[in-house]
Amino acid sequence: MSGIKIITDASVARMDGSDGGYGLLRNAAVAIKGDQIEWVGDMSDLAEQYADAPRHTVEGRLVTPALIDCHTHIVHGGNRAREFEMRLEGASYEDVARAGGGIVSTVKATRESNEKVLLSQALTRADALISEGVCVIEVKSGYGLDVETELKMLRVARAIEQLRAVRVVTSFLGAHAVPPEMEADAYIDEVCLPALEAAFEEGLVDAVDGFCEGIAFDTAQISRVFDKAQSLGLPVKLHAEQLSNLGGTRLAAERGALSVDHVEYATNDDAQAVADAGSVAVLLPGAFYTLHETQRPPVASFRAHGVPMAVGTDWNPGSSPMGSLLLAMNMACTLFGLTPAEALTGTTRNAARALGLDDCGAIASGLRADLAIWNVEDPAELSYRIGVNPLYRRIFGGVW
Amino acid sequence: MSGIKIITDASVARMDGSDGGYGLLRNAAVAIKGDQIEWVGDMSDLAEQYADAPRHTVEGRLVTPALIDCHTHIVHGGNRAREFEMRLEGASYEDVARAGGGIVSTVKATRESNEKVLLSQALTRADALISEGVCVIEVKSGYGLDVETELKMLRVARAIEQLRAVRVVTSFLGAHAVPPEMEADAYIDEVCLPALEAAFEEGLVDAVDGFCEGIAFDTAQISRVFDKAQSLGLPVKLHAEQLSNLGGTRLAAERGALSVDHVEYATNDDAQAVADAGSVAVLLPGAFYTLHETQRPPVASFRAHGVPMAVGTDWNPGSSPMGSLLLAMNMACTLFGLTPAEALTGTTRNAARALGLDDCGAIASGLRADLAIWNVEDPAELSYRIGVNPLYRRIFGGVW
Ligand SMILES: [Zn+2]
Ligand SMILES: [Zn+2]
Repeated sequence: MSGIKIITDASVARMDGSDGGYGLLRNAAVAIKGDQIEWVGDMSDLAEQYADAPRHTVEGRLVTPALIDCHTHIVHGGNRAREFEMRLEGASYEDVARAGGGIVSTVKATRESNEKVLLSQALTRADALISEGVCVIEVKSGYGLDVETELKMLRVARAIEQLRAVRVVTSFLGAHAVPPEMEADAYIDEVCLPALEAAFEEGLVDAVDGFCEGIAFDTAQISRVFDKAQSLGLPVKLHAEQLSNLGGTRLAAERGALSVDHVEYATNDDAQAVADAGSVAVLLPGAFYTLHETQRPPVASFRAHGVPMAVGTDWNPGSSPMGSLLLAMNMACTLFGLTPAEALTGTTRNAARALGLDDCGAIASGLRADLAIWNVEDPAELSYRIGVNPLYRRIFGGVW
Repeated sequence: MSGIKIITDASVARMDGSDGGYGLLRNAAVAIKGDQIEWVGDMSDLAEQYADAPRHTVEGRLVTPALIDCHTHIVHGGNRAREFEMRLEGASYEDVARAGGGIVSTVKATRESNEKVLLSQALTRADALISEGVCVIEVKSGYGLDVETELKMLRVARAIEQLRAVRVVTSFLGAHAVPPEMEADAYIDEVCLPALEAAFEEGLVDAVDGFCEGIAFDTAQISRVFDKAQSLGLPVKLHAEQLSNLGGTRLAAERGALSVDHVEYATNDDAQAVADAGSVAVLLPGAFYTLHETQRPPVASFRAHGVPMAVGTDWNPGSSPMGSLLLAMNMACTLFGLTPAEALTGTTRNAARALGLDDCGAIASGLRADLAIWNVEDPAELSYRIGVNPLYRRIFGGVW
């Protein structure tokens, strides 16, 4: 039985969809072989074949799938604390813009930072997520807005998983904002699409994202990006319906997107389209909170249509400088009305699905042994506490 | 120069009120002698007398006074995660009460827990605050509601500072809720006042607090508690105007209270009374957030009247299961409109004042050497990030 380890005396939230909730087993055990889960079940059913395998009691603690942050912008230069402060001191958006603030300041700082500096800052952010039991982090480009810097951001994202015990999934987000030096259409055709091709050639792209909004790109421009993505065989996803309804959700659904993200302004028809497409609605309460939004995503409609919901930090320097996925879960409950079971599903099984991963996000035979062990008794505690990290241990690919 | 240490290459936010903001010095140094700050100023002004003292560079990092959480309930039994979950699953308050939820469940769990268990859980919570650079924690009783358990809670609070490098300031909060077994008036006279006397005899009480609200006690009942407090020579403070305006703020101000806490429903007249009394308004955004409140405290009025504002976690198992003072600062900015400078003043100088402490809360000659050193450049970053802990080192009484 070499290479097998047994976790015993666990409360296991399998998150496998078996009961529509936690799939909770008390007095349970998990058998890990190499980097995979081989078996999970009641301790009393532990097979004789495991009789000689080393056992590690977790003394009744809760074991969940490792968390997955399926929407982040953790590779970026600088911070926008001074802008946050100016706004609270009464400055208008124009004042902030005149002082060099806004997304342009992040683009400038990201262009000016070298890979080493960007990586060191991104690692600090990845470490914060890892300390909460995260094993998969999605990372977007989108603060370069020129070919060279978009590639630099994605290289840094890839480098994170060389230096930390974590998987990184990248999204090319060239269509994030219009750079100050260009018009939107010219930017898409002359910069964004060539950057996507170059990044794809270098193996830097797992999915292609965009920002469909009045302050960014319209559906026709996003369509051109999606055409290129699909010609390269890459899946798509979209920041859609965050501040208004421009039809991005339907566009993304038509393209079979992995996910539609934010979606505060999605309608019932949008929810139906998302359900039909099998896309995941990724809820990002950190941005809702920071921007003082009042329009909540249509959670009841997503439930009614059977749309899977995920939850992410949206960690970015402007609208969501939030580095805690547990806090995102609490906010998803408190601000959007998700149940704690939906919130945990949203950072495990449904987060995996939003990234197109089918080898993680639940505790079941054959999946990766990416687990989080918590100093709590009940899974609801993970969403209930605010700003508290009860992680006991994290297991990444079978390694404690 | 024995016993002197010099911190060099620091950005020091003195929080001494010198400029109405951070009192920020760049390229500064702090000289620590024993457990006190002996000198702070520009590095170029470091006196010759310090020429031989050991120097510790902090490489440009920000140094602030250690943080002070001036309002917590971190000694309590059990948690209310299941109640949080039931509410999100659609249960009414009646359903929750029928299932044994609400404050009564915390009272039951606190009565049933022995001192050892209560202490071990309180230490976990204290550790979370300490990890954010906190050096003073206020801890209230109020989940016993019988003489024995109120004393038990305060003994546990005192024990925290025996086991951790932190100061604990206690508040007797017998007038927190009416226990299920009694009427309010009888409870005050037959349990609360005798408990206060007994706790005072045992040296367990630094201040006396109450909860003046429709669901708790009226001003006449709180007055009787304050009479007893003042006959014992103890300062008072009050949970007031959280959910409605019952006149608690004016009552507390008349009694020269150290602080009035929550105060969402305080009026301009209340603000004037608080200013005249020299009391501190303690803002608790965690409860506002958790309870989905919409009435914000009158921050503009507090500013206009010169009311000092503090910020606390209100860490408790029901209305604010929040274990991060940095997050409370972010919420004070995002939800209540405080500036980052006001938020930091609220967890340093004004928090000390809310506890009647005059030996900490700022970086100035003669004060305690309780310092926090942060991996940030600008003090606004402490309020800007959400759910991120950038603490580099904490110094408690001159000890790293
Ligand atoms: Zn985003
Ligand atoms: Zn309180």
